[in-house]
Amino acid sequence: MNVLFVFAHPDPHSLNGALRDSAVEDLKAQGHSVRITDLYAEGWKAVVDRADFPQLAPGTRLRVPQASRDAFQEKALTPDVQAEQEKLLWADTVILQFPLWWFAMPAILKGWVDRVYAYGFGYGVGEHSDRRWGDRYGEGTMAGKRAMLIVTAGGWESHYCRRGVNGFMEDLLFPIHHGILFYPGFEVLPPFVLYEADRLSEENYPAAAEALRSRMRTLETTQPIPYRRQNGGDYDIPRMELRAELDRPGISPFGLHLNESESRDGSMSNRAD
Amino acid sequence: MNVLFVFAHPDPHSLNGALRDSAVEDLKAQGHSVRITDLYAEGWKAVVDRADFPQLAPGTRLRVPQASRDAFQEKALTPDVQAEQEKLLWADTVILQFPLWWFAMPAILKGWVDRVYAYGFGYGVGEHSDRRWGDRYGEGTMAGKRAMLIVTAGGWESHYCRRGVNGFMEDLLFPIHHGILFYPGFEVLPPFVLYEADRLSEENYPAAAEALRSRMRTLETTQPIPYRRQNGGDYDIPRMELRAELDRPGISPFGLHLNESESRDGSMSNRAD
Repeated sequence: MNVLFVFAHPDPHSLNGALRDSAVEDLKAQGHSVRITDLYAEGWKAVVDRADFPQLAPGTRLRVPQASRDAFQEKALTPDVQAEQEKLLWADTVILQFPLWWFAMPAILKGWVDRVYAYGFGYGVGEHSDRRWGDRYGEGTMAGKRAMLIVTAGGWESHYCRRGVNGFMEDLLFPIHHGILFYPGFEVLPPFVLYEADRLSEENYPAAAEALRSRMRTLETTQPIPYRRQNGGDYDIPRMELRAELDRPGISPFGLHLNESESRDGSMSNRAD
Repeated sequence: MNVLFVFAHPDPHSLNGALRDSAVEDLKAQGHSVRITDLYAEGWKAVVDRADFPQLAPGTRLRVPQASRDAFQEKALTPDVQAEQEKLLWADTVILQFPLWWFAMPAILKGWVDRVYAYGFGYGVGEHSDRRWGDRYGEGTMAGKRAMLIVTAGGWESHYCRRGVNGFMEDLLFPIHHGILFYPGFEVLPPFVLYEADRLSEENYPAAAEALRSRMRTLETTQPIPYRRQNGGDYDIPRMELRAELDRPGISPFGLHLNESESRDGSMSNRAD
């Protein structure tokens, strides 16, 4: 299996760096091929701007979707973006690893998404008709591949529980899981989340690293989060609203996009971390 | 009133640029003072890295919270970050304006948050004890100030409704509203969201701009989203979990952090846009 790590921590000697190295070593020992995009080490350009679209005539408005579509079609995207797209096509499994900063990805990783997910590649794929609304949410360029998050958080796990003051982690990650990974077609595995990461002691590190390695050994067998496929009949097209009869009292708006019949318990709480 | 716009679109001639100019003009006509942080125009550095902490000894690990705390205490943060902190202290109301990219802020704006919200300024403020868990979620450096999002989205409004395939907009914005704005103390006003922004016609633009200007005229009187204060008794400390008796069946995890008794209908759906 080909595994791509996209890594977003500024210090290779950090806890995140150690966890990454441990996970990668385990994957290689299993015989998998691993490539790493180390965003900080590579000096990744985080910001979408005119320089991303060299073919755009000076003085014209920068409409990002159109410029992205044209550059992708003309193979005129910048080499760094093309290289990342090639890695995504190569990979069977993609892992995004980052510290949770302000309840979201660090800017450098968000900029990887913003730039690499070009129109025609990450979105704007497939037929729009009265039967389907593009190849997205379960279909798309990444269909057949798996993805997973490795996240470190400073707060306590209870601060992120269902009633935790920081917001429920499962819902905080929904925009990434569903909106960034499921959207272009990935099957999304439950995340590996390490809480109180800044306070992890030397003596507790080995257990955390082993928990992560055990996830690396089940990448091919772990059940993905059972999100509903957009074009599978559950959503009205083109309103793209879940059919009213699939609403369930007591389920959060984000939770409605899970197909409960495919899940043991209708949530991500069967995750292995 | 002092109003700070933090603006995150790469093209000043965009719809976002036109809306911003219209809103700013209206605010000035009302007699308010307005300052603008135009992140793209100013070449904002999006990425947190060692260069942010010039006092950090070479070869030491970059632990971002500690480095941020030390640099803030020693007034050693970089001048661009200090300038933004000064603007935030100056402002009575802060407006973050951006196109929604991949269900979140553009990287450049996320990088503004990641860098400007230093430890001791945006977080790590106040006493941690068995009665309170820092000055956050309703208290903190920004207490007494208001904040509001102006967001453009490419999709249809129905794609972002409660059962919409993209996820419920109210919940998609929760990590920003609650996690980035309420956290350091802002009162958070309901957002102005413009859907199908890429397809807005010339003839429909004036109504959209007027709707935004009308929001600019009610910044001081609009009811904020009634988030619960962390240290007000609703959360168990230090678990920071909402007390079990405040759970309500049928309310989403994010929705639990609203104090329904302060809200007409327990949601943001009373928003004026």
